[in-house]
Amino acid sequence: MSFTYDERIDGALPPVDREALIAALHRLSPTMEVLHEPERLRPYECDGLSAYRTVPLCVVLPETVDEVCAVLELAAKRGVPVVARGAGTGLSGGALPLEKGILLAMSKFNRILEIDASAGIARVQPGVRNLAISQAAAPYGLYYAPDPSSQIACSIGGNVAENAGGVHCLKYGLTVHNILAVDIVTIDGERMTLGAASLDSPGFDLLALFTGSEGMLGVVVEVTVKLLPKPQCQKMLMASFDDVETAGNAVARIIGAGIIPGGLEMMDNLAIRAAEDFIHAGYPVDAAAILLCELDGAASDVDEDLAHVSELLASAGAVEIRIARDEAERLRLWAGRKNAFPAVGRLAPDYYCIDGTIPRRELPGVLKGIAALSDEYGLRVANVFHAGDGNLHPLILFDANRPGELERTEALAGKILELCVAVGGSITGEHGVGREKINHMCVQFSSDEIEFFHAVKAAFDPSRLLNPGKNIPTLHRCAEFGGMHVHHGNVPFRELERF
Amino acid sequence: MSFTYDERIDGALPPVDREALIAALHRLSPTMEVLHEPERLRPYECDGLSAYRTVPLCVVLPETVDEVCAVLELAAKRGVPVVARGAGTGLSGGALPLEKGILLAMSKFNRILEIDASAGIARVQPGVRNLAISQAAAPYGLYYAPDPSSQIACSIGGNVAENAGGVHCLKYGLTVHNILAVDIVTIDGERMTLGAASLDSPGFDLLALFTGSEGMLGVVVEVTVKLLPKPQCQKMLMASFDDVETAGNAVARIIGAGIIPGGLEMMDNLAIRAAEDFIHAGYPVDAAAILLCELDGAASDVDEDLAHVSELLASAGAVEIRIARDEAERLRLWAGRKNAFPAVGRLAPDYYCIDGTIPRRELPGVLKGIAALSDEYGLRVANVFHAGDGNLHPLILFDANRPGELERTEALAGKILELCVAVGGSITGEHGVGREKINHMCVQFSSDEIEFFHAVKAAFDPSRLLNPGKNIPTLHRCAEFGGMHVHHGNVPFRELERF
Repeated sequence: MSFTYDERIDGALPPVDREALIAALHRLSPTMEVLHEPERLRPYECDGLSAYRTVPLCVVLPETVDEVCAVLELAAKRGVPVVARGAGTGLSGGALPLEKGILLAMSKFNRILEIDASAGIARVQPGVRNLAISQAAAPYGLYYAPDPSSQIACSIGGNVAENAGGVHCLKYGLTVHNILAVDIVTIDGERMTLGAASLDSPGFDLLALFTGSEGMLGVVVEVTVKLLPKPQCQKMLMASFDDVETAGNAVARIIGAGIIPGGLEMMDNLAIRAAEDFIHAGYPVDAAAILLCELDGAASDVDEDLAHVSELLASAGAVEIRIARDEAERLRLWAGRKNAFPAVGRLAPDYYCIDGTIPRRELPGVLKGIAALSDEYGLRVANVFHAGDGNLHPLILFDANRPGELERTEALAGKILELCVAVGGSITGEHGVGREKINHMCVQFSSDEIEFFHAVKAAFDPSRLLNPGKNIPTLHRCAEFGGMHVHHGNVPFRELERF
Repeated sequence: MSFTYDERIDGALPPVDREALIAALHRLSPTMEVLHEPERLRPYECDGLSAYRTVPLCVVLPETVDEVCAVLELAAKRGVPVVARGAGTGLSGGALPLEKGILLAMSKFNRILEIDASAGIARVQPGVRNLAISQAAAPYGLYYAPDPSSQIACSIGGNVAENAGGVHCLKYGLTVHNILAVDIVTIDGERMTLGAASLDSPGFDLLALFTGSEGMLGVVVEVTVKLLPKPQCQKMLMASFDDVETAGNAVARIIGAGIIPGGLEMMDNLAIRAAEDFIHAGYPVDAAAILLCELDGAASDVDEDLAHVSELLASAGAVEIRIARDEAERLRLWAGRKNAFPAVGRLAPDYYCIDGTIPRRELPGVLKGIAALSDEYGLRVANVFHAGDGNLHPLILFDANRPGELERTEALAGKILELCVAVGGSITGEHGVGREKINHMCVQFSSDEIEFFHAVKAAFDPSRLLNPGKNIPTLHRCAEFGGMHVHHGNVPFRELERF
């Protein structure tokens, strides 16, 4: 992880005749918006990971699939790289522009094309906001399940690119489990459909391959999503614990009992206090950790599970168990969790959010490990995360203006990710790799595995013009980073000895 | 589809020095079984699609991953193709040997390596039978969800290769939705892990790409599967209809109401009578069609859904609705369905099972279409299928000894698949493409799409030694087959005019 912009990717690209390119883009379609004035490019210089910023060569805002095809065909002919952008809410810099590249902003693709309620399917354009799909489906009693925290703003195209998750993905799956087909445009400007609105698709599963590929294989121009019936009933339970490890063990007990909650979230004391100060959700500020458990389904079923979960939590050592009495309390408890990131953000000038996953059984040990690393690096870490999935979001608090603190934050974040890999987890759960974690891909994967990724990339985009420098590192980069590939079960980290 | 073995694939392969190859295989590992005597090769000449038969050059039965690596490395060095085989129950000829190729039989990889009940995970070798996983998990109250009809015999490695489904995949998904990781050996003899036992895997989703790739990208040597808690309660309902179309509409009504049954199966009159004669399941032999609907989950939930489904079926025109009174009746009703293929098989000397999928809303029209085609070709067709998924299994009855009947069966099966594609479906639901449907891939996909498949294949196996001639047709083959790519929504078939 490096907050300093890596010059090599842009540096390695050939120079582009900017004026000629912009003129050619204008010629493709006289009505297509092409931005090139510095003040109009500025809003596109970063996505949700604002520590990385680059002003693109130009920004193109197509309105039709034909325009997307024409832009990509032109880019391929001229050898100019293209970075596609959804709503710009990504947290790993997947839509970070290149100074010698076109930024293809898909925000004008914002129409819901069809809702087929009886089939439980919606066809939408990629710029449609995640929440807007559920809003449009609501009159039919349906919704779109994946719900990233940014769902009010993030686009479904971006969700596909990053294989986005959310609070409810424990029960309902990631984006890849909730889409049936995507229409893409390849770098050669050809439109293709991957997947189908039926059970299975013959040949290789290119839809799954494409989902989470971070704009490196093609540009999404249409998405067919699954719509699910809204659960009849949702109830919420909060359990408090005297120590973090006990809370971690309780998570494994619930899942081990065969109950799959709609959401199962954990917050530690620092996060609890920050959220309570900010939102007044009614959290116990003295608790070492809380678990928020939402159960959904048929009313009778939910009540049965609620009783069962309460028993499990009590026997797992919860000191207080509170069931939200009404919808208002349920929403208030969620509000604390959903605003936990900005709440923690108020505790320090800067914060940095990490996104690693681990097997659930490793939760207690890894939380202890993070606490030890936090002490070692002298930086506070708040934990707010999708406990049921083992998807951690440690938030490191720091002050970029204090000399050395940014670098210490980077180093600490790196150690936490390496710890996740060492226990059999991975360096990302739902935020993607993007630019942010490209070095840590070298920790996660061997050279052989990275070569496979490159070979797959070459099958779609042999000239490597689609979002270069993201997601898959070069082997050269891995060699420079230090060749620290970690094999699960073969844990070479001195950190682990302490846990 | 052609029952006549296509000589070109073997014909195009270079000659192999059989004696030298066998000697080299023996040298790899003195204890590894290598079969080469004609009478010992015979059992391997076909898989479950016995209309295609080829005796392989030799059969190798490795017992360790190192042996698999060594065999593949040797094959790569000598340019000899390799076909991997699980239990040989595949229905599309995916494990059909090559006469100039090695058959790699994985039957000795039959150990369950680990069951982690608290994590809901099992690690198994690829030769383990599908049902054996559930049996081993049963003491923990867990099971492995995908349940192909062949589950007593088929292996999990073969399930991965074909992305197998089953009666319950409507609710619980296909193989790809129920596995977390596979260890594979590449054609270069390198072991690699795809996927992880945690939420998401960074980089491209190679696990999903590999699942259903029919042994063309690598050989599976270990599978990590998800185990689910056994449903508390299962209940079964049978509804009879006076005509097939009304039954088809009822399926859409149930799913449209937001109910996802554990299984939702349909049988037409020919299948009902055959099954009843054979199994005495208690089916109404005068009904034009029956639906079998199984609901599972918490007991209270199941009762609620059962009442709701009964109402929906009554209002959709069911003439009789019967709820299985006890477990014995439930199992008897299932037994009729599960033995429907052999039961139908008693009606004629030969039968041929087709596996296409269609969007559910097309069920009534496509069933009418199949009936019209059956009349046109003068061949009886029984329908027994996964109605909830839109996964059809028309069974064509014929007599291979009557001149021309085999060819008419082939032609009729082809027309039925083309009809599936024309309404937006696909040429396979759960049986795979294999050798059987390779020509019909040219109907499903455009040349551009097929080129993408080849590029992906080349990323894993540039010398095309893994299972050549299956799954993905050459463009040359498509040109010969007649270039009939059908675009959904753009239906060029005269057959459709009649529906």
